[in-house]
Amino acid sequence: MSGFVTFVSAGPGDPELLTLKAAARLREADVVLYDDLASGAILDHTRKGATLVSVGKRAGRPSAKQEHVSRLLVDYAATGAAVVRLKSGDAGIFGRLEEEVEALRSSGIRYEIIPGVTAASAAAATSGIALTRRHTARRVQFITGADVRGELPEDLNLTALADPSAVTAVYMGKRTFPALAARLIANGLSPETPALLAESVGHPDQRLLRTTIQDLADQVAHEAVTATAIILFGALAGEDCNL
Amino acid sequence: MSGFVTFVSAGPGDPELLTLKAAARLREADVVLYDDLASGAILDHTRKGATLVSVGKRAGRPSAKQEHVSRLLVDYAATGAAVVRLKSGDAGIFGRLEEEVEALRSSGIRYEIIPGVTAASAAAATSGIALTRRHTARRVQFITGADVRGELPEDLNLTALADPSAVTAVYMGKRTFPALAARLIANGLSPETPALLAESVGHPDQRLLRTTIQDLADQVAHEAVTATAIILFGALAGEDCNL
Repeated sequence: MSGFVTFVSAGPGDPELLTLKAAARLREADVVLYDDLASGAILDHTRKGATLVSVGKRAGRPSAKQEHVSRLLVDYAATGAAVVRLKSGDAGIFGRLEEEVEALRSSGIRYEIIPGVTAASAAAATSGIALTRRHTARRVQFITGADVRGELPEDLNLTALADPSAVTAVYMGKRTFPALAARLIANGLSPETPALLAESVGHPDQRLLRTTIQDLADQVAHEAVTATAIILFGALAGEDCNL
Repeated sequence: MSGFVTFVSAGPGDPELLTLKAAARLREADVVLYDDLASGAILDHTRKGATLVSVGKRAGRPSAKQEHVSRLLVDYAATGAAVVRLKSGDAGIFGRLEEEVEALRSSGIRYEIIPGVTAASAAAATSGIALTRRHTARRVQFITGADVRGELPEDLNLTALADPSAVTAVYMGKRTFPALAARLIANGLSPETPALLAESVGHPDQRLLRTTIQDLADQVAHEAVTATAIILFGALAGEDCNL
């Protein structure tokens, strides 16, 4: 079977954080399958006449089943079309990329992956801080706050996460953050550990909140879930923060 | 004091992995201070007449002292020039960004940070795999293999690193990988744990090697150090890899 699929990372939301290569692949695409979080102005890079297919992944909304997305990818590629699969952030970080890659492999369809800017990098940059610090934050880790059921994953490595010398970014973790913070504190991480919530980074309704893990847990417990929230906590830069 | 500095992430090496925003800031810059790893075709985005200043950070070569770079940033910004500080990868990940940010803050100079594609994302993408996997690799972490002395850091969280369900990316860690692998194995990580070495990703001399942590440690012990090597190890995708 012929066909070729390019997985394109759309970046964290700001259309200007698309890479040059991603924009080029969008211009060349015959078919683009995109998530709702990777749409808007980013799709302006596609050529007139390209087929644009929303596969609608969005937190809190019904979306196409993963198997259906994989089937669409295989079917479009089989027509010989230049297919782009557009995913938000860096496709390789919490993008469920591997499920679609496996579908292509088992159908003998070749693919490439264009990496992109992940949401944690954008959240830190917008806040004016680095994710790592030479002497005091030499490990940075990314986790997801939601498992397949949408709950806090049960198999968290709490020794890794409750480490005051690391910086942790939690993707899709606003709703479960009160539960996570409670587990971190129970495992010895200070309730006063710095925390930063970044929502809708690069959008007009961008929100940045810097506080402590305990206070953030208290605040988000009463808030609506948003699709694009990233939480950073740990050895965050202090005074050298824009917030 | 007036002046403004834009920290621009140059991405992992491939000039096409620059973001649109990074390219725009380079076009507008009066002065660009760049590391050797963030140069070449990327500097083609600068306008004719812009002042380009190499500050020469490169593994294994003499480079400008950090304080000198910070001094240059402050001095150029003080002239009212549009200053870009170009850093390889994502500036916020092992880019020593915080030292330059602190220099600007203490001089009252405003700045912004443009995030970019970090080397771990590019290494995984080029290898055809995701850094995370929904069921089996839900934590990804980045560490540096070299402290200020160029040695393996002493304060490694080995419980975090010897976790077979995580994926770890080691930046600047080729030379010290034998020592790291020995500590991981001593802390219970299987010597057969998958490992992937990615060097010069996106360059003509790109090299990808997929093996185990033990074998990789044995191999790199006899090799030259390269500036752009990234090592991934842990719960890496198996059969669904391009290698």
